Amino acid sequence: MDGRLRDDEVLVGGDARQRYYDSRGYGRPLDGNEVALSRVEAAHLMLRGDLDSIDGKGFREFLRDSTGDGFAARFLVYADLRERGFYLSPDRSGWVYDPLPGSDLVVYPRGSGPWDDEVQYRLRVVSERETIPAAHLGDVALAVVDEESEITYFETDRLDVRGTTNHDVPSDITGSLVADRVLLWDAPDELHRRSFYGQPIGGREPTGALQLSLVEAAHLVADEKLAVEGGYEEIVARGREVEGERFDRRLAVYRALRERNVVPKTGFKFGADFRTYADVESVENLGHSEFLVRVLRDDHEFVPRDLALDVRLAHGVRKRMVFALVDDTKRTTTFLSVTRLTP
Amino acid sequence: MDGRLRDDEVLVGGDARQRYYDSRGYGRPLDGNEVALSRVEAAHLMLRGDLDSIDGKGFREFLRDSTGDGFAARFLVYADLRERGFYLSPDRSGWVYDPLPGSDLVVYPRGSGPWDDEVQYRLRVVSERETIPAAHLGDVALAVVDEESEITYFETDRLDVRGTTNHDVPSDITGSLVADRVLLWDAPDELHRRSFYGQPIGGREPTGALQLSLVEAAHLVADEKLAVEGGYEEIVARGREVEGERFDRRLAVYRALRERNVVPKTGFKFGADFRTYADVESVENLGHSEFLVRVLRDDHEFVPRDLALDVRLAHGVRKRMVFALVDDTKRTTTFLSVTRLTP
Repeated sequence: MDGRLRDDEVLVGGDARQRYYDSRGYGRPLDGNEVALSRVEAAHLMLRGDLDSIDGKGFREFLRDSTGDGFAARFLVYADLRERGFYLSPDRSGWVYDPLPGSDLVVYPRGSGPWDDEVQYRLRVVSERETIPAAHLGDVALAVVDEESEITYFETDRLDVRGTTNHDVPSDITGSLVADRVLLWDAPDELHRRSFYGQPIGGREPTGALQLSLVEAAHLVADEKLAVEGGYEEIVARGREVEGERFDRRLAVYRALRERNVVPKTGFKFGADFRTYADVESVENLGHSEFLVRVLRDDHEFVPRDLALDVRLAHGVRKRMVFALVDDTKRTTTFLSVTRLTP
Repeated sequence: MDGRLRDDEVLVGGDARQRYYDSRGYGRPLDGNEVALSRVEAAHLMLRGDLDSIDGKGFREFLRDSTGDGFAARFLVYADLRERGFYLSPDRSGWVYDPLPGSDLVVYPRGSGPWDDEVQYRLRVVSERETIPAAHLGDVALAVVDEESEITYFETDRLDVRGTTNHDVPSDITGSLVADRVLLWDAPDELHRRSFYGQPIGGREPTGALQLSLVEAAHLVADEKLAVEGGYEEIVARGREVEGERFDRRLAVYRALRERNVVPKTGFKFGADFRTYADVESVENLGHSEFLVRVLRDDHEFVPRDLALDVRLAHGVRKRMVFALVDDTKRTTTFLSVTRLTP
């Protein structure tokens, strides 16, 4: 069988409809028995020896001439998922009813195909060298093709973060700003023990004093629970001094998490901004922290390798990687979770 | 007992020598029974109630006035290591014979002290908000104090990377540059199987073809094993097109590793540039890869949080984190290993 390239499709006649579409889910049926294949589908049929040529070109020649626009990456992902037993289609009108912008392929559940209504994933395919705007994630899964053509899959979701840590905090606390932390010399016991603010000073030689990070202190001052000389402005000024504008963004996320009754603590040991605890009864019975949170601007462009690093680390410590995306003008935060996907 | 601050030292008389230095390794002995304490040592003695005041100031007041120059971080690390059973001194002349630039504290082996000759670590103390020039690492361990005053320790070492993978590679191979990889349609079997170059195309439907990443191809062309139309220049130009100047640096490291008989393969799944195999007999009997390599300029300044991320991930997958530091002018590479340290 020989196909002919017309625009971006490969048309095949003969018994193509039965042979390619009906029995194996390739292409979209046209009138009669003709089928239109995407270039990726056509290349895959050639790889398997089920299509001889396109305008007389064999597989190698066709591949060589199909550079640009991410063809190679899409082809590799298509072939990989076919091998894993999935049928899939290009996410384009003609193939699917409701193409999703930013998605390249529609993957059907195993055992289903383009004739069925179910969709397992909408998949965006990128090379490890492209960046991915955060705004494009949340509705699609991601397939990243690395320089050796290995493929890594990620699931992405918008997340409604909620917890239950909502203990009363006394409102007559005072502290003093010392370098880049706030010291409370006589902190009420429950501030740390129940609400998990701060860190006791002195280790095995307890002093009764508590140190707060700047975001913790700024949050408590903003909520009128804590008084510090110079007030909120002074703490934020100190924060900007040591961290730049990142401080404002981290504070916005800290406050967004506390408002959702989730406790953020430093994620430094995991290379993240925060680790979070949704349900703190008391620090003596602290559970496992659930999320690792990285704070980013909402117009952030992910570098796939950095994404792979974060998600792999979170997975390794049995936590979920969550990106807190901050709108710098409105100071609103949305949460994007990215996890490993093994199709 | 009361001390008096003179320049950067706290002088204490009375029985200070016996009380602080001889029995517990604080300070440096002066004439008679007087001892000079660093501010950090003096603060620690006050925290423990073993020194009452300095120029009449108590612990809280002294701490409040000792901001700047990283005092808080050094104090926290000093106190932490004391609690873990170590004696330590400031890495300054008067306290030690050969102070190491860039090191803040000398830590003695457990059971030893400043009277002995042994040193366990030279320790550089930084806050998580400071950056650390790569050039300052290799001789010192690192203590990073995060925003909640938790401390993370790292060991750093200059590394002589060496492997034994040195199989002969045929020298009459030809390939073609397709987008951002090089395809070899009739690759000699041992190129992949023994020397672990490239990746076979076609998965479960083997095509006999091999794809090389651009760094693999550029290396083989430079070594006159592989011929590609346009030659070395064309591959490097393509690499710069898709990766910018990072490509040259990654290629320099790739070649440095191969010259040392170590096989670099992509580290993408671990968020690194390369993972490496020192001793490849054949791909069928491939061992565990030993290092994760991140490629950096040799004037790189580490952000402690990024360092924590890399080292934690490598530890979690039982590999060693290695930074390949490239001198962009001379194209030479040195290797810096950073690992977790639990004192």
